[in-house]
Amino acid sequence: MPADRNGYTIDRDRLWSSLMEMAALGATEAGGVCRLALSEVDRRARDLFCRWCEEAGCTVTVDGAGNMFARRPGRDQSRAPVAIGSHLDSQPTGGRYDGAYGVLAGLEILRTLNDRCIESDAPVEVINWTDEEGARFPPVMLGSGTFAGVYSIEYARSREDAAGETFGAALDAIGYAGSAPMTAGHPIGTFLEAHIEQGPLLEREARQVGVVTDAQAITWLDIEVRGTEGHAGTTPMESRKDALVAAAGIVRAAHAIAAAHRPTARVTVGDLHVYPGARNTIPGRVTLALDTRDPDLDQLDAIEQQLRAAAEREEAEHGVAIRVDRISRTAPVRFDRDIIEAMHGAANAAGIAQMDMISGAGHDACHIAGIAPTGLLFVPCKDGISHNEAESAAPDDLAAGCEVLYRVALQRAGAPGPDDADR
Amino acid sequence: MPADRNGYTIDRDRLWSSLMEMAALGATEAGGVCRLALSEVDRRARDLFCRWCEEAGCTVTVDGAGNMFARRPGRDQSRAPVAIGSHLDSQPTGGRYDGAYGVLAGLEILRTLNDRCIESDAPVEVINWTDEEGARFPPVMLGSGTFAGVYSIEYARSREDAAGETFGAALDAIGYAGSAPMTAGHPIGTFLEAHIEQGPLLEREARQVGVVTDAQAITWLDIEVRGTEGHAGTTPMESRKDALVAAAGIVRAAHAIAAAHRPTARVTVGDLHVYPGARNTIPGRVTLALDTRDPDLDQLDAIEQQLRAAAEREEAEHGVAIRVDRISRTAPVRFDRDIIEAMHGAANAAGIAQMDMISGAGHDACHIAGIAPTGLLFVPCKDGISHNEAESAAPDDLAAGCEVLYRVALQRAGAPGPDDADR
Repeated sequence: MPADRNGYTIDRDRLWSSLMEMAALGATEAGGVCRLALSEVDRRARDLFCRWCEEAGCTVTVDGAGNMFARRPGRDQSRAPVAIGSHLDSQPTGGRYDGAYGVLAGLEILRTLNDRCIESDAPVEVINWTDEEGARFPPVMLGSGTFAGVYSIEYARSREDAAGETFGAALDAIGYAGSAPMTAGHPIGTFLEAHIEQGPLLEREARQVGVVTDAQAITWLDIEVRGTEGHAGTTPMESRKDALVAAAGIVRAAHAIAAAHRPTARVTVGDLHVYPGARNTIPGRVTLALDTRDPDLDQLDAIEQQLRAAAEREEAEHGVAIRVDRISRTAPVRFDRDIIEAMHGAANAAGIAQMDMISGAGHDACHIAGIAPTGLLFVPCKDGISHNEAESAAPDDLAAGCEVLYRVALQRAGAPGPDDADR
Repeated sequence: MPADRNGYTIDRDRLWSSLMEMAALGATEAGGVCRLALSEVDRRARDLFCRWCEEAGCTVTVDGAGNMFARRPGRDQSRAPVAIGSHLDSQPTGGRYDGAYGVLAGLEILRTLNDRCIESDAPVEVINWTDEEGARFPPVMLGSGTFAGVYSIEYARSREDAAGETFGAALDAIGYAGSAPMTAGHPIGTFLEAHIEQGPLLEREARQVGVVTDAQAITWLDIEVRGTEGHAGTTPMESRKDALVAAAGIVRAAHAIAAAHRPTARVTVGDLHVYPGARNTIPGRVTLALDTRDPDLDQLDAIEQQLRAAAEREEAEHGVAIRVDRISRTAPVRFDRDIIEAMHGAANAAGIAQMDMISGAGHDACHIAGIAPTGLLFVPCKDGISHNEAESAAPDDLAAGCEVLYRVALQRAGAPGPDDADR
């Protein structure tokens, strides 16, 4: 059987064409995708995925959170499957690749196994996790989190969108509330996810594949600065307790603290509100929403302490009162070392330029890593832009990531490798 | 005729009781006042003022902007009047003294002239200017500005409130659109305004009266910072173009620039908005609203240049694009030197502790200073708090300011002074 134009086992053009067909569902005028979780468009995407998987000879089951599992049998049905997947839902003004790539890379692997009439020892599954974006039903990664036992099914079903509709009602309405077993009832032998990087590093380093070794720990902080409102014209500068001046000091300190912990740390003040918010009134209150990340939990905690110390300095300097509330703290994820090793070997064997990376974003693989050996792989996206209709990825890069995943899946499932597939 | 308990000519308790009666119109639960311009409550305040003035023997006329003039005849009716006034409208959550004090101090002066059967050479008028706050119909000081010829009557009538109702329609609805002459048709010989300070200086210096020599020039700037949105987890710190980090630099620079031009300069960033405003997205755009003031226009322009230079430094440092738009620039006001001298003398004669001040806020007197010799006088307000239901002033201080204004008005109108009133 001939290799494709890059010498890959998988079919670059078939993968690309499936991605483009999926991108037509919810396509926006600006070239992006709006496919909110459990919307009518999401239903059509699920139906298409289901049809493709059944055409590839798979059985498709659905669990209580709407997660979809397309199963290709193995020689040894008692073995836990090698599962590959990601999500088909998108941001409201999302791109064509975020999520869909990981699901359709799994489908391409199924199709390649079929083309080559390969029987694997373990079954192979392709998974579409529900509501990874959390854009309609927060929190993010709700489907994989429920499968992994982080959230109960009751919790998931009770989540509400902005209009007050529940996740459960929306899932029932599109006909994707199933009864397939979850968590311990559905053991997974290996989970593999391919995703666009959503950052600029692979492009900058000219690598086609990033092997993700860890995902960052994340701490979210809410900060409130209370000063004293006053008249902008009559209040002398030295009498002021300007909440925004103190808040600006925190923003600058946050930036400096992150820079001091390069290259791993990220500190972002993503939102800030000024009260009362009138040009000629000294701000009496400011709220800030901070996102802090680092792969090392001790370093992340040290960053939080430095932010708290910066807030205390602003309190002393500007006579304001500052409250720092930690609203969440999630531990880092360490991906399976054997799978990382297997990805290194597969990329080398296929001649694909690779590098190790840390994931700054959360992915379904982060939840599944808690219950199964899990690997995560990135491919470049143009200018690092994601969660944006301008999101773009190159067919060759998408194929390279899929090829690496194919080789690792074969190895993990117990099947002949691609180099001896033509025997 | 006996002096009041402070040895003043005017009646402290009568002034206070009129202020409290007026404060009952639009009284809020928190002890403040909500008397928006041209509202039904404003109509009742106007009716009460009109009744009081007519009971004091005055003729009340109204011009096309709703400004009210209560006239006490002089011996020489050809002389332009000595006018005293301020405004009866308030902020939505305003206090009892801002504006109302200046109008009712004028009324108290009328009543004192009557008590003492004093005939002045020039007529004496008490004025209620319409819509000084601009809270319902921007801009601020609309009534006095229209009288002074800064705005046309057509402009004033076309101003709209948030609900789309025009100033003209609201004025007609409460029955206060008159036809009294304005500007050159209604020459004013002297204009005097008493007002609470709305700042902390008199209280801090333990003075009862502030003689205002100048009002600050004011420049308003809009600043827009454009950076690049990005994922808070995946975008390395050194690749960011964070609009909020740059905006925070401008906020801090604004504070430092003002401090470098102490004691006169005031620089306030009163409002700031972050877009898209999500915790885990690097801000791509930030807008800031700046208010800058100084009594010296050259220094104010220098401050603007320094702010522009600070914006350029942030552009260079953070790779963002910053636009600085000057949306308004009003010249400083220099109050009449003879009136200032007269205020000094009157306060000394009455044993009232005084100091010279610069007004950081705009007042009706600022517009009238363009067409007539004008004086502005401040009295303390507690903690400098104003535009707030907690606004508070002491009866003794309010009486002291009124006494100084009474003595200056007598002198300017050509009448016997209080020290020889019992002759």
